[in-house]
Amino acid sequence: MKQDTIPSTNVLSCDPFPGSEKVYVQGELHDIQVAMRKIEVGDTLHKFSGKVEKNSPVYVYDTSGPYTDASVTIDVRKGLPKLRESWILDRNDVERMEQISSDYGRQRLNDPNLDHLRFEHRHQPLRAKAGANVTQLHYARKGIITPEMEYIAIRENQGLEKLYSQDNELWKQHQGNSFGANTPKRLITPEFVRQEVAAGRAIIPNNINHPESEPMIIGRNFLVKINANIGNSAVTSSIEEEVEKAVWACRWGADTIMDLSTGKNIHETREWIIRNSPVPIGTVPIYQALEKVGGKAEELNWEIFRDTLIEQAEQGVDYFTIHAGVLLHYIPLTAKRVTGIVSRGGSIMAKWCLAHHKENFLYTHFEEICQIMKDYDVAFSLGDGLRPGSIADANDEAQFAELKTQGELNRMAWKYDVQVMNEGPGHVPMHLIKENMEKQLEYCQEAPFYTLGPLTTDIAPGYDHITSAIGAAMIGWYGTAMLCYVTPKEHLGLPNKKDVKDGVITYKIAAHAADLAKGHPGAQYRDNALSKARFEFRWDDQFNLSLDPDTAREFHDETLPAEGAKVAHFCSMCGPHFCSMKITQEVRAYADAMGTNEEEALHQGLAEKSNEFLEKGSELYL
Amino acid sequence: MKQDTIPSTNVLSCDPFPGSEKVYVQGELHDIQVAMRKIEVGDTLHKFSGKVEKNSPVYVYDTSGPYTDASVTIDVRKGLPKLRESWILDRNDVERMEQISSDYGRQRLNDPNLDHLRFEHRHQPLRAKAGANVTQLHYARKGIITPEMEYIAIRENQGLEKLYSQDNELWKQHQGNSFGANTPKRLITPEFVRQEVAAGRAIIPNNINHPESEPMIIGRNFLVKINANIGNSAVTSSIEEEVEKAVWACRWGADTIMDLSTGKNIHETREWIIRNSPVPIGTVPIYQALEKVGGKAEELNWEIFRDTLIEQAEQGVDYFTIHAGVLLHYIPLTAKRVTGIVSRGGSIMAKWCLAHHKENFLYTHFEEICQIMKDYDVAFSLGDGLRPGSIADANDEAQFAELKTQGELNRMAWKYDVQVMNEGPGHVPMHLIKENMEKQLEYCQEAPFYTLGPLTTDIAPGYDHITSAIGAAMIGWYGTAMLCYVTPKEHLGLPNKKDVKDGVITYKIAAHAADLAKGHPGAQYRDNALSKARFEFRWDDQFNLSLDPDTAREFHDETLPAEGAKVAHFCSMCGPHFCSMKITQEVRAYADAMGTNEEEALHQGLAEKSNEFLEKGSELYL
Repeated sequence: MKQDTIPSTNVLSCDPFPGSEKVYVQGELHDIQVAMRKIEVGDTLHKFSGKVEKNSPVYVYDTSGPYTDASVTIDVRKGLPKLRESWILDRNDVERMEQISSDYGRQRLNDPNLDHLRFEHRHQPLRAKAGANVTQLHYARKGIITPEMEYIAIRENQGLEKLYSQDNELWKQHQGNSFGANTPKRLITPEFVRQEVAAGRAIIPNNINHPESEPMIIGRNFLVKINANIGNSAVTSSIEEEVEKAVWACRWGADTIMDLSTGKNIHETREWIIRNSPVPIGTVPIYQALEKVGGKAEELNWEIFRDTLIEQAEQGVDYFTIHAGVLLHYIPLTAKRVTGIVSRGGSIMAKWCLAHHKENFLYTHFEEICQIMKDYDVAFSLGDGLRPGSIADANDEAQFAELKTQGELNRMAWKYDVQVMNEGPGHVPMHLIKENMEKQLEYCQEAPFYTLGPLTTDIAPGYDHITSAIGAAMIGWYGTAMLCYVTPKEHLGLPNKKDVKDGVITYKIAAHAADLAKGHPGAQYRDNALSKARFEFRWDDQFNLSLDPDTAREFHDETLPAEGAKVAHFCSMCGPHFCSMKITQEVRAYADAMGTNEEEALHQGLAEKSNEFLEKGSELYL
Repeated sequence: MKQDTIPSTNVLSCDPFPGSEKVYVQGELHDIQVAMRKIEVGDTLHKFSGKVEKNSPVYVYDTSGPYTDASVTIDVRKGLPKLRESWILDRNDVERMEQISSDYGRQRLNDPNLDHLRFEHRHQPLRAKAGANVTQLHYARKGIITPEMEYIAIRENQGLEKLYSQDNELWKQHQGNSFGANTPKRLITPEFVRQEVAAGRAIIPNNINHPESEPMIIGRNFLVKINANIGNSAVTSSIEEEVEKAVWACRWGADTIMDLSTGKNIHETREWIIRNSPVPIGTVPIYQALEKVGGKAEELNWEIFRDTLIEQAEQGVDYFTIHAGVLLHYIPLTAKRVTGIVSRGGSIMAKWCLAHHKENFLYTHFEEICQIMKDYDVAFSLGDGLRPGSIADANDEAQFAELKTQGELNRMAWKYDVQVMNEGPGHVPMHLIKENMEKQLEYCQEAPFYTLGPLTTDIAPGYDHITSAIGAAMIGWYGTAMLCYVTPKEHLGLPNKKDVKDGVITYKIAAHAADLAKGHPGAQYRDNALSKARFEFRWDDQFNLSLDPDTAREFHDETLPAEGAKVAHFCSMCGPHFCSMKITQEVRAYADAMGTNEEEALHQGLAEKSNEFLEKGSELYL
């Protein structure tokens, strides 16, 4: 196995997207600059009239952070700029600690053998002052609109304010015709963000020790989000690869990253990831705790786990998956399953419970966990340790028993103003998906749902990004707030960089399909702009507006690589004679040439004939 | 551009699937042998008890034809064995023609410049005797159960009879526990097949001139089918590549192939494909007709089209896409669309209608078309020429107006006992998908629906196999009988062999997910067998039971290539410590070691403790 090393600076993808630039929208309540990506598009040239139609630029939600801002210099060894630091300090409810609180953390810090792996530019951690509560839920309930909340409101609107405020011909047209069928019904306001957080229907995962991250929200009245899992295992991977995968995942659209490392140097790997991540980071602390006891689940205990929570909270982890709902008396419910317990955290806790004949210590210590979480604003992602691992086990008693306990734990978290979401399955056939969402809303009082897929069949290992994207899109439409991606390697091995991208793009598709189906304000704007570009053979615009411009361009160029083909009114799929879009263009041009608009031309010129035929024709089939 | 050549024999994939053999089930009503694939699986070794559990082989529906039968010698230049020839001749209602009826066909046949491209072993075509009707619908309505119908019944049951009749421990278990949640409720009988065909709810596309094809059925009370499009364009591809792609698509699960060639040598390309295809072939005859008039839509006419229909019917095309529903007065309805008309056939007919100010000649000559179809048993696939080409255009007036006309044309086809299905969209967001199915059932009297995707968003060119698999799975669940695949190259270029496989596997996933959701008898059997293998770390079984054993194995081996890793109780994803399945196995083993079954062990050993805690624990959260 190769030696672990710190990342070299050139592994991170820092190129801006083609035809795009990073723009910043100024806040009104707070002095904040909200990043988004602006995609410039070309004009439409009307062939016969010679008229030039201006097409509006398209603003899209951008998770790639400073990496795609050409004006920012990235140095992986220094980490990203601390966007939120002043917001946090200005609230006057945190204190900077003289040293880190975790025994294990100090031990790693003082081990000279780890010097070569250490992130050098770390700060001393922040913690809530005694008696303070620094969670966004706490502020929201007090009626405070934080900079984070305003940032999110502007971000979620994806530049629609701009389009509204422009006296733009195209935009007016959109509102008048089919282009505007799903045009935004309302804009998201900072106050709406606050209300949703206060109600527990949405969470803003942003640990005060991860000021590098751009605020984002997880809730079903916002854009559907996606998470990408990365992390090493005992068998493979390095710090460099994991940081590279994290930044790569953000580039393609990951809204959060979970670092699921279970191999060596977990502490240092996480530090590098957090310092370079523009999105919130989640972890499953029990994994590291298990490593600390040499992989023996029965040797786990509350003290080790508690120290791990604090260690990770002070590094800046934004949400913790905690499998506190795997109760002792639920374990027998999994005995007759085809695939037993398939969650790693769930099986670790089940093993511990059985070995000790005791209740899950995460459950019995849940209030103490809440007290830690509120000091750093770490959000709960309550694990679904008993999720089904096969179609046969979907929606069974074990699964729903745990979900009910998750609801109970939500209420406890909320007592401490700690933000919480619930994790969900797994493997579920399509006809059983809706029940998962309905039960979660009921049992868990509308806290955000965060599901893994679900996979809608078990028979396609190697393609589980697809088996699960089907389920993910559906459950997203039904109300799931965040979708945990599944890569093509699921069930087979650790994802590499290509798998990460495949998983992320696939899940962006699922999330966006869900946004369209839910009618999220403005979701369809990008679809319309891309389809218009496609129809008008503006090939570069079509590529640039797509989720993955590189692949779209590459596929096109495989058969027609010449630059001239980018203005050609056909592609290799059908060739020039059979291009329906070309023919329709001709139909439109024909109408144009007749000096009237297409619809009128058709109606005027053809109505008689058409009616004539209708009389004859309808006789034909009476 | 490279010279066209006939296929060399070594381009076709003839390897049997790993761990699998081709088996044949004997018919009872007819002397027929129904091909299916039998996947052998290993035993389960119970670690502590030492008990060996036999696992039943899994029989799966197999579209790969003789290619995967190790005992058959394939010669692409001779074509496949004529499985159905004697069934057809035995009915005594056909006659062998002295020469082909199409002028164009004869012209191609007599052109010495084409000698080097010609399929040599062709037979003279068959046609219904004067006054006869040779469609499966005609027989079904007469109460005749044809060999085709019995073949289909046995094929659809996927070997479940075998499992039923075996006194098999595993199978009995399945029926008793969660393994059997979706176990078959009923077997499909030959009489049921006949009834569904007679009712027009299902079609059996099998032209009497394509006796090489294995009977299959398209209808919503059967397994959901998928179609793969192949075919050259003016810009790219050759006969050899197209035959290779066709056989490749069948290998991975294509239930039918559409040859959409629009380039050169369309006639010869089609001959090679049909003679080597074990699945029904569909075409869009207007494409070839357009080529005959030099690509000028306005020069099309009924005579050329009619000759093309006969030419193709006598070659053995099993279904024709006919865009007879694109009526003159519907064209203006597309004027305000974002993407106008995107169907090639639709735009060709629209252009013709406009150029002539006349009603669509496919509509005005529809009865004559029916008369041709019934002579060869070619089925209609009524084209949706006005399908939406973008999310913005979904479910609009133009689309549903054409659908209503499709229903009218269905009734006309049925008057002639001609089998018919209806093509559907296209681009449709998730929340508008169901309406498509409901309207089709209503307007088209439950004739099989055959949809392209639908794509649930427009923003992912390069990934449209995925954007559309989401919609395909859903509409399949709602009742669509056949899903036309979309490849990653959609909108960008002509699919190559890799794209064809990606498209087919993706659509097998969508179709199977739909079968599970519909509760098709036995659909879940394969999922359960694979999940059991996965849980028991029978890696080879997991690979062999998957839709794509090659890719599953390759992905696994990327990180753990050693043969020993195939019996390892973990993979590179989590490593040995974190493998939840391994831990659950240990939990089970632990129970086993206690000399009782797991559930009892847990209940006995833990109930007290569990109850004890429950009393304390429930206080915690009151």
